[in-house]
Amino acid sequence: MTRHIAIVGAGLVGSGWAIVFARAGMLVRVFDQSAPIRNALPEVLSGQLEDLKAHGLIEDPATVMGRIQICDSLARAVDGALYVQESVLERQKVKAEASHAIANHLAPDAIVGSSTSGIPGSAFTEDVPGRERFLVVHPVNPPYLVPVVELVPAPWTAPETVAAAKALMEEVGQSVVTLSREVEGFVLNRLQGALLREAWALFDEGFATAEDIDKTVRDGLGPRWSFMGPFETIDLNAPGGVADYARRLGPLYQSIAASRPEAPPWTEDLISRVERERRSHLGAGDLAERRGWRDRRLMEMAADRQRRTER
Amino acid sequence: MTRHIAIVGAGLVGSGWAIVFARAGMLVRVFDQSAPIRNALPEVLSGQLEDLKAHGLIEDPATVMGRIQICDSLARAVDGALYVQESVLERQKVKAEASHAIANHLAPDAIVGSSTSGIPGSAFTEDVPGRERFLVVHPVNPPYLVPVVELVPAPWTAPETVAAAKALMEEVGQSVVTLSREVEGFVLNRLQGALLREAWALFDEGFATAEDIDKTVRDGLGPRWSFMGPFETIDLNAPGGVADYARRLGPLYQSIAASRPEAPPWTEDLISRVERERRSHLGAGDLAERRGWRDRRLMEMAADRQRRTER
Repeated sequence: MTRHIAIVGAGLVGSGWAIVFARAGMLVRVFDQSAPIRNALPEVLSGQLEDLKAHGLIEDPATVMGRIQICDSLARAVDGALYVQESVLERQKVKAEASHAIANHLAPDAIVGSSTSGIPGSAFTEDVPGRERFLVVHPVNPPYLVPVVELVPAPWTAPETVAAAKALMEEVGQSVVTLSREVEGFVLNRLQGALLREAWALFDEGFATAEDIDKTVRDGLGPRWSFMGPFETIDLNAPGGVADYARRLGPLYQSIAASRPEAPPWTEDLISRVERERRSHLGAGDLAERRGWRDRRLMEMAADRQRRTER
Repeated sequence: MTRHIAIVGAGLVGSGWAIVFARAGMLVRVFDQSAPIRNALPEVLSGQLEDLKAHGLIEDPATVMGRIQICDSLARAVDGALYVQESVLERQKVKAEASHAIANHLAPDAIVGSSTSGIPGSAFTEDVPGRERFLVVHPVNPPYLVPVVELVPAPWTAPETVAAAKALMEEVGQSVVTLSREVEGFVLNRLQGALLREAWALFDEGFATAEDIDKTVRDGLGPRWSFMGPFETIDLNAPGGVADYARRLGPLYQSIAASRPEAPPWTEDLISRVERERRSHLGAGDLAERRGWRDRRLMEMAADRQRRTER
């Protein structure tokens, strides 16, 4: 029997993971402790797979679907698995309980990645047996469209665990970022947080509307950042490369940073003002439709990325 | 006689502006005080126009080129112009001299936008006659591919000047961001600076390599930001919209911000380490070729944007 992948927790994140592994040809066993979630899963998955087919991202939804088994016990999903992706509720206690339950059924050579986006692994794996085989494997939603995944070892995670998770994630087509150690928010949410902090402050101080700040990103900074990161961007933006750029523009950025020493809190008043402006562009009743639009755009970008890779 | 657009300063930025206006059907008169730059301009412009045609962004380079006249005096370019885009060297003294020279020849109803990316308009237009008709109109390079433009009034800029510049920029197809008043770095470089500040700090502290930080943006945050700004992104990322998101995740972002109270300077040692890593991915001799790749990607994105607008 071929070793399989186990998914524990089959909400939005877990079901997305099932598609990532099944699309890559792997057998996937999914468990969620909620019977309603388990029962709804076939329809959720086939809807997502049909969307992927419609955008040319997979050929045959039925074949991919055939690789996903829904299990009614954690043991059935985890027993014999090569790798377990834990995607239970984002609460420390729930994560800790799930990690212990997984450890009880884990094959001696298997490893476990947690989808947590905000809780460091050390907060819920410290007293788990075999904790050296646990780490954070943080995806962006949905992981089958946005390829980046952050690997974050706890202090006790073995280097071999990180290496095995990296190899597996690359095998299934994710873009792997490896942190040397834990840091709050990991890399992705720290970078997003830094930009949001300045965006909210500029809005708060009345320099620009939220819509104009959004335009600055989507029609200015964002297009480059969708195919180059910030370091490559500045490396190409001065004749002599990144060092040349840093020497020319470092003082400007230092001065900007010094002008923003404190992070103004997102008060209820500030939140209401942002909310009011956003709702003037997009009514609350249109949020769901706009999410569909966003997902179609992400699918088109994923299809474009796939074509470039195949070339 | 139809009123024309004047470009003063025809380096990389000024020549890009000439294409923006000529592409939109306007007559453009360009002046640069350097004879070698003036003499090289026809070849520079036709190369860029051929690239635009190759990507389906314009139909007939010769027609666009035919709308651009190169002038050997500032007076000939500015006399009778409807709008002047000042794109001289990024030095306060040079900007001040150019602004005075332009004012001498400016039609009474004409307005002047400066391409400055870092010097506030108030630093070089204070004693310029007709200063209420001067403002900053900051593009991203090249402006015919990256549509965002920041309008920044000096304290004495008339509201009518801002309104006229906005109308003109929208007419030629730019995406207009209007600041209420001056702030160092304007919006675009403040947002870029905020993200770079965190990126350099994470690299400095050894949490991740520059390449992994780049991956986090290009394979994670960047794709969304290329078609939605940061506010719309979070508005769609919680069931109840932006207010719901801010209440759920505000505390995490506050805590991340509090963990980065100071901006570590970009020391020579840090710059060398970033430079060393970047050069291991891309040799100094390959920078120019990679810039060509970046420009082709930006053209493909511009062509895609044009198709979506026409639909």
